[in-house]
Amino acid sequence: MATLIAPPNHSPQEDAESLNKAFQGWGTDERSVIAILGHRNVHQRQQIRRAYEEIFHEDLVKRLESEIRGDFEKAVYRWILEPADRDAVLANVAIRNGMNYHIIVEISCVLSPEELLAVRRAYLNRYKRSLEEDVAAHTSGHLRQLLLGLVTAYRYIGDEINAKLAQSEAEILHEAVKEKKGSQEEAIRVLSTRSKTQLIATFNRYREIHGTSITKKLLDEASDEFQKALYTAIRCINDHVKYYEKVVRNAIKKVGTDEDALTRVVVSRAEKDLKVISEVYYKRNSVLLEHAVAKETSGDYKHFLLTLLGKQE
Amino acid sequence: MATLIAPPNHSPQEDAESLNKAFQGWGTDERSVIAILGHRNVHQRQQIRRAYEEIFHEDLVKRLESEIRGDFEKAVYRWILEPADRDAVLANVAIRNGMNYHIIVEISCVLSPEELLAVRRAYLNRYKRSLEEDVAAHTSGHLRQLLLGLVTAYRYIGDEINAKLAQSEAEILHEAVKEKKGSQEEAIRVLSTRSKTQLIATFNRYREIHGTSITKKLLDEASDEFQKALYTAIRCINDHVKYYEKVVRNAIKKVGTDEDALTRVVVSRAEKDLKVISEVYYKRNSVLLEHAVAKETSGDYKHFLLTLLGKQE
Repeated sequence: MATLIAPPNHSPQEDAESLNKAFQGWGTDERSVIAILGHRNVHQRQQIRRAYEEIFHEDLVKRLESEIRGDFEKAVYRWILEPADRDAVLANVAIRNGMNYHIIVEISCVLSPEELLAVRRAYLNRYKRSLEEDVAAHTSGHLRQLLLGLVTAYRYIGDEINAKLAQSEAEILHEAVKEKKGSQEEAIRVLSTRSKTQLIATFNRYREIHGTSITKKLLDEASDEFQKALYTAIRCINDHVKYYEKVVRNAIKKVGTDEDALTRVVVSRAEKDLKVISEVYYKRNSVLLEHAVAKETSGDYKHFLLTLLGKQE
Repeated sequence: MATLIAPPNHSPQEDAESLNKAFQGWGTDERSVIAILGHRNVHQRQQIRRAYEEIFHEDLVKRLESEIRGDFEKAVYRWILEPADRDAVLANVAIRNGMNYHIIVEISCVLSPEELLAVRRAYLNRYKRSLEEDVAAHTSGHLRQLLLGLVTAYRYIGDEINAKLAQSEAEILHEAVKEKKGSQEEAIRVLSTRSKTQLIATFNRYREIHGTSITKKLLDEASDEFQKALYTAIRCINDHVKYYEKVVRNAIKKVGTDEDALTRVVVSRAEKDLKVISEVYYKRNSVLLEHAVAKETSGDYKHFLLTLLGKQE
């Protein structure tokens, strides 16, 4: 369930002209930018980009970059891109910023197999290198193996569950949590090749055997980056809504607010399941997500996020 | 340059009816089967399959399986499949037959990035498991890492070469040849993520530095399966025509002939570059490939291979 409110009928030409008008004169009319782009779905936004190019012979994305600033600019920039292209940018920024591998794991484990392929294709088009090439160049050891396994995965989508496999592979994961020598490679194999349905059965089996969830265990015991990446991967595969809720919660809680994380979740999920994430957030925190966002952000950035969160004026 | 001779105009309906006629009565009219299917391109063969299904409410592939036998059946079966589906079958057979990893390497390193993705998609559709899942389940250690890296690669296609990188990565490969501890993972990274153009520059740099090609070096020194897979990967990336020539040469030379390998190359390349492979074969062996094939095979199988090799009656 999306939070985005987009009218079914819009004229890309009129939108392009309104945007161009918003750019005229001293300063930019940010409210108009938000009123238009904050209420258009992915298809409509691409139509507007094309219409803008045709009418004004100018790239709308470039124009926006010169018109607006700061967190607001970043959010609008990410929002206006097609999802696969946006994720390619997020992945590249994550790699360049000291290899924030959690974002790589998130993209690899939350997306569907075909969506993930689309991101790899977009990355290649944009950076003339493959995503796995850049990931591999910035990592080593088991962390590298895990990230490469996840990023290049093309999982089976199906409901079949092999209970025996779930049992034996729950033990493989347990050994990796316990850092038993040689167990990491088997855990990587399991996490990067099995279908999500099968993996969820394995996580459930783990809880039955060990009386606690594997993520709880990892949260308590994770001792290195490999285990932390394992933790994120399992959370994203097991229940990405709960995962995103926590990302948003931590972003808001952080002194000074982690705008990048907040933007990432809102922009990536507004057209997908931000409503569900928002509900889980409310259940967990007894505060409406839009109130928390409104409290921690300001100006056009705040206004834009609230618009994507479906809060009408 | 293909060897296949296919007429531009054919009627899928007439072909389907002729095939059905060839199946009637005692025995099968194999000559007709060859005369039709041995002269149809991939698109035409799929049209015939559809037409056959529509007219006779029967799967042509299944019917063929019950009509013909042995190496001839295998060759026709592989030929009638779409290339990605055929490679999925070849990969699966290779995994089941004691993990013939050279075929996995061949598929991964010869195909274009999009072709390889198509094979992974076909594998998933056919076997309800991912290709990498099956590869990982049957291998371990560095061999597994290398095969997974190659099979899941989505390389950049472009002509840019980074000469500095070629230099430093030639040394990484050299360390892996020398089995220096820890060098294998870096060699895997290089081989599974760099563009083919970049890798060829790296192989060339290797020859300049060490006075001999890396494949020659590996051929002399390869001590385990990992190094043998490395050897095959480098050959397939560097010059797949020369690689295929050798596969065919070894298949023919072998006592009893390796029909599976021979069939694989002829069927996979007849619509692509079998003419070039055949020319390289002649240069290397001073024997025409079709003569060698005619000498080592017999019956309908021989007749079918020669047809795909472009030898008209």
